[in-house]
Amino acid sequence: MKSIITISREFGSGGKEIGMKLAEKLGVPFYDKKLLEEAAKQSGICEDLFHKHDETYTSSLLYSLVMGAYPVSSDGKLYPDMPLNHKIFLAQFDAIKSIAEKGPCVIIGRCADYVLADNYKTVDFFIFGDMPEKKKRILERYDIEKTKVEDFIKKTDKRRASYYNYYSDRKWGVATHYDLCVNSSELGIDKTVDLLYNYVMLYEQE
Amino acid sequence: MKSIITISREFGSGGKEIGMKLAEKLGVPFYDKKLLEEAAKQSGICEDLFHKHDETYTSSLLYSLVMGAYPVSSDGKLYPDMPLNHKIFLAQFDAIKSIAEKGPCVIIGRCADYVLADNYKTVDFFIFGDMPEKKKRILERYDIEKTKVEDFIKKTDKRRASYYNYYSDRKWGVATHYDLCVNSSELGIDKTVDLLYNYVMLYEQE
Repeated sequence: MKSIITISREFGSGGKEIGMKLAEKLGVPFYDKKLLEEAAKQSGICEDLFHKHDETYTSSLLYSLVMGAYPVSSDGKLYPDMPLNHKIFLAQFDAIKSIAEKGPCVIIGRCADYVLADNYKTVDFFIFGDMPEKKKRILERYDIEKTKVEDFIKKTDKRRASYYNYYSDRKWGVATHYDLCVNSSELGIDKTVDLLYNYVMLYEQE
Repeated sequence: MKSIITISREFGSGGKEIGMKLAEKLGVPFYDKKLLEEAAKQSGICEDLFHKHDETYTSSLLYSLVMGAYPVSSDGKLYPDMPLNHKIFLAQFDAIKSIAEKGPCVIIGRCADYVLADNYKTVDFFIFGDMPEKKKRILERYDIEKTKVEDFIKKTDKRRASYYNYYSDRKWGVATHYDLCVNSSELGIDKTVDLLYNYVMLYEQE
C-alpha cells in the first residue's frame, strides 16, 4: 500500500473509527488528534490552542484582532501579523505536508484532501450517515441531553463545513470533490472499512 | 441478489456502461432507454416524446401551454390538463414503479432513486468523473467538435440537474442523497463495476 488516504466525515458518522480500522488493516499510521500534536511540536504553538481551534473558523474581526495579539510563538517569527486561527491553520497545513512526506497514512479531517491536492496523489473519502445512527453514536460517546443531540450534530457539521469552505476553494460534502463517498449507516462500520479497503486494493492494483 | 439499484450519473462518466456491466454481473435486468419504451407502452403516449423530453425540464410557460395542447393520449384520459413534460414525468414515474415491482434490477437516471424512495429499499449510486476522461469518452461516442465538448457536457449535466432538482425534493450530486458516490476516472470502468458489485455483496450479506 502506497497511498495517502484522507477522510472527511460528518459528525457521528463513525468516520474516525472507520479511518482507524482502515489504517490498522492497511498497516499504516493514523492521524486524527495526533496531527494537532505534530503541528504544535513543529510550530512551537501551544497544543491546547490547536484543540481549541480544531476545525473551527471564526470570522469575527474583533476576535481575530484580540487573538492575533496573543503571544503564540516561542521564537516570535511565525506569521507574526496574522490572526491566531489562520496561524493555527497554516501550522496544521505544514504538519499535514510533513506527515505526507513520511509516506502512506490515513488522515482524518482538517482539510487534508485540499492541503495535499497539488503535490500528492491522495485517495479522498467522505463518510456520512443517517441522522438516527449518528444520534445514537453521539449519545453513546458524549454526555449530552437526548433532545439536544441533533442540534449538536448539525452545529458541529456546520462548523466543519465553514472551516473547510473557508480554507479550501471547495464545498464540503459535494460528491465530486472526493474519490468515494459512502453512507456508513447502510453498511455499518466494519463493512464500510471492508469497502474502503477494497477500493484501495483496486486503486493500487497494477 | 435482491436489491433494486439506481444509478445517477454525470454525462461522460461511463455510468450507463458501469450500470450495464453491473446488471450483467448480478444477473438482473438493466433499464436505461428501455424504461422510456416501458413508459410509452403503459401510458399510450408516443415513445418519441419520451426520448425528446428525456430528463429535460422546461419551465417555459408558453412551451408548456403549447405542448400541453398536443394530443398525447390515445384515450384522452391521462392527465388531460397537465403540460406534456409533467405527463411524461408521471408516466415514467409509473413505469419505474412497475419495473421495481417485478424485482431486482439496475435503473439509470430518471429520478428513480427519488421515485422509489418511499416504498422500496433501493441501493443508490452516483457516478461522476474528471473532465479530461469525460471529454475523451464523449468524443468517442458523439460526432462533436473537440472545442465544443466541454460545453456540451456541462449543459447536459445542467439539464439533468434541473430535471432532478425540479421533480425531486433533493439536489443532484449532493453526496448525502446517495448510498455511494464514486469517481469512475480513478478506478476506470471495470474496477468501478467491481467496487459497486463488492458494495452490493457487503450490503446483502446477512
